[in-house]
Amino acid sequence: MDKQPKSEQLSINTATVRQQWKLGQIIDGCARHDIRGISPWRDQVQELGLKETARRIRDNGLTVTGYCRGGMFTGIDDAARKKADDDNRRAVDEALEVRASCLVLVVGGLPNDSKDLPGARNQVRDGLANLLDYSRRMSMPLAIEPLHPMYAADRACVNTLCQANDLCDELGDEGLGIAVDLYHTWWDPEFFPQLERAGKKRILAFHICDWLVPTRDLLLDRGMMGDGVIDIRAARLAVEKLGYEGLHEVEIFSQHDWWQRDPDEVLVTCKQRHLDCC
Amino acid sequence: MDKQPKSEQLSINTATVRQQWKLGQIIDGCARHDIRGISPWRDQVQELGLKETARRIRDNGLTVTGYCRGGMFTGIDDAARKKADDDNRRAVDEALEVRASCLVLVVGGLPNDSKDLPGARNQVRDGLANLLDYSRRMSMPLAIEPLHPMYAADRACVNTLCQANDLCDELGDEGLGIAVDLYHTWWDPEFFPQLERAGKKRILAFHICDWLVPTRDLLLDRGMMGDGVIDIRAARLAVEKLGYEGLHEVEIFSQHDWWQRDPDEVLVTCKQRHLDCC
Repeated sequence: MDKQPKSEQLSINTATVRQQWKLGQIIDGCARHDIRGISPWRDQVQELGLKETARRIRDNGLTVTGYCRGGMFTGIDDAARKKADDDNRRAVDEALEVRASCLVLVVGGLPNDSKDLPGARNQVRDGLANLLDYSRRMSMPLAIEPLHPMYAADRACVNTLCQANDLCDELGDEGLGIAVDLYHTWWDPEFFPQLERAGKKRILAFHICDWLVPTRDLLLDRGMMGDGVIDIRAARLAVEKLGYEGLHEVEIFSQHDWWQRDPDEVLVTCKQRHLDCC
Repeated sequence: MDKQPKSEQLSINTATVRQQWKLGQIIDGCARHDIRGISPWRDQVQELGLKETARRIRDNGLTVTGYCRGGMFTGIDDAARKKADDDNRRAVDEALEVRASCLVLVVGGLPNDSKDLPGARNQVRDGLANLLDYSRRMSMPLAIEPLHPMYAADRACVNTLCQANDLCDELGDEGLGIAVDLYHTWWDPEFFPQLERAGKKRILAFHICDWLVPTRDLLLDRGMMGDGVIDIRAARLAVEKLGYEGLHEVEIFSQHDWWQRDPDEVLVTCKQRHLDCC
């Protein structure tokens, strides 16, 4: 199973170069550098236009490894959660339009002024169940993305692969799975056993970047593959051993480094590091 | 069991005011504000002198809720790990001299240039087993402190209460337990069940502060109790329900806020917030 990563397996999450390029430029950049996958963010899609985005992605033959993003199920009251549900259904429609392989879900953190983390987690389960009523009818898979525990309060209260697996167990596997992002999960003592528990059917996306030492910012200091401490190769081999055949999506938020560089250089570096370090 | 927190249950980890005061001043400050517990750091003790520190703490009748700190079991080679073991044995001796209730262990992260997190975790187990040979003879309990996953690379690769419980299971409960710090563990979906698994005998220390939203620095932006999102009261009630009778130790690293304030104001605030929010 120790096959070399291939350049055809690389996908670029558009956050990686979003400070330098608009979505149209990113699509052109992927084509120019022969990168075969992309994962766009909703705000960029809205700026370019949904149908135009879908057309350009299709014209360039790009695989859409995920649509970023739905979720944010937690809220202070029913009205807030209803609004999120409506918006999530639109995200499902958009994901279908761009032919994404899944809608990636960042589930939401604590509602304002709340300290009730178990309650927030229950809201996530209920909101996800609601959205599944729609996404299953539309045949758009939902990928729960566990986020690093440092985001438990403000972004996502699903923080481990175990929680994501528990949600899949509870809500059923049809049209539901997990986006495994190494930045968020590499530290987890249960990483490998929970990957195995997820298995091929649940692993809908595989996101890579690196954890820098030191990390200077909680949100915007992710590293390029090879510049940090994550054993990306071991994780990639593990998901492939389980039968994962999807692409490897690079998602780097890097305010002071990669977002300051020539985006062509960033893409070239992603390609090389993907071959060398993953 | 819903008894009010009492001012007699407050302990101050000296890191909370260490930028403003030397250890002698901190001991005097605790006495002046009628704070009955303290947890000193080794470098401060060395500066004041071990015997002088022990004398002053004794003269003021302070309970030493922990000695900070031992650990750092991970290293690139046997020589590095032997050096850590020697230093840890001296830390045991010092903890005995100041009559600490436990030696707090920050276990160490990845060795330089290593990406082998499972290997680092094995080094922790082995280093801890070595140190227990000595600490058990000396009757100084060791308290494993799980640190937040954001420190897995550079400070501690024990990141959950579950891992700490597993280590206690494997190495035996005699003279071994856990320092439960809410800053590091509040996000954990397994927090309450793993507390219960630990039980009274393993909970050797209980550290409090708060998680701020936003958190602006990975290390030095901890919040005063009540200023963040941690349900400190629920956690305090849970440890007391299990029979924990020790103090509540406030440990706040806060470069841009509490470390900039008048340290008397900091201690007064700790006392008040401990009563109101914990």
